[in-house]
Amino acid sequence: MNTEKINIAEKLSLFSDHWNPRIVGELNGQHVKLVKFKGEFVWHKHDNEDELFYVVNGEFIMEFRDKTVLLKANEFIIVPRGVEHRPVAENEVSVMLFEPTSTLNTGNTKGELTREQLEKI
Amino acid sequence: MNTEKINIAEKLSLFSDHWNPRIVGELNGQHVKLVKFKGEFVWHKHDNEDELFYVVNGEFIMEFRDKTVLLKANEFIIVPRGVEHRPVAENEVSVMLFEPTSTLNTGNTKGELTREQLEKI
Repeated sequence: MNTEKINIAEKLSLFSDHWNPRIVGELNGQHVKLVKFKGEFVWHKHDNEDELFYVVNGEFIMEFRDKTVLLKANEFIIVPRGVEHRPVAENEVSVMLFEPTSTLNTGNTKGELTREQLEKI
Repeated sequence: MNTEKINIAEKLSLFSDHWNPRIVGELNGQHVKLVKFKGEFVWHKHDNEDELFYVVNGEFIMEFRDKTVLLKANEFIIVPRGVEHRPVAENEVSVMLFEPTSTLNTGNTKGELTREQLEKI
């Protein structure tokens, strides 16, 4: 049983690279991850996983094929499975993710930004 | 498909009662809830659900049978299934919960604080 508390700022201080999620918690088959975005990600979708993006600080735009959504600190969005999306961040943004443990960051679009083995911090 | 963004402060402004979680999101069989705590809750456990408590603002103490954990803003704790716990808040605190849709707020201890039908806001 792990009931240690997790401090988000402390965990964010442990890494500085972009588009490389770290695992900070696990429950009910889901992971809690922290990630820093900067720049443009790749268009992708997840066939079997819904994804939640919660902005810790900064802001970014979630692009969909038919609209864009600007997300600021203490706002979140849920991207349903099957829906193509692409996060774009003009400046660095820190984001908390909730998603199934099976989720691959680039979904159906494997490439140089794909991270298969995520670090637990 | 619902890809509207959720603003936490805006949702928190919609209610003021304590110990009555509201549903603000759903994904992968999990609910995202917001709740305000003040005072002492009841000791309880969830036999089949792990629960995540994320402090949006304020602070509270999570009591376990063998220790207590003080949680402040932007900190979270995961309470594994089967583990007895009791949240206690000297002052009002706003908390985001992430847990299976099957989760009953008072777990195995039904009583006057039990909320069976949660409002979606």
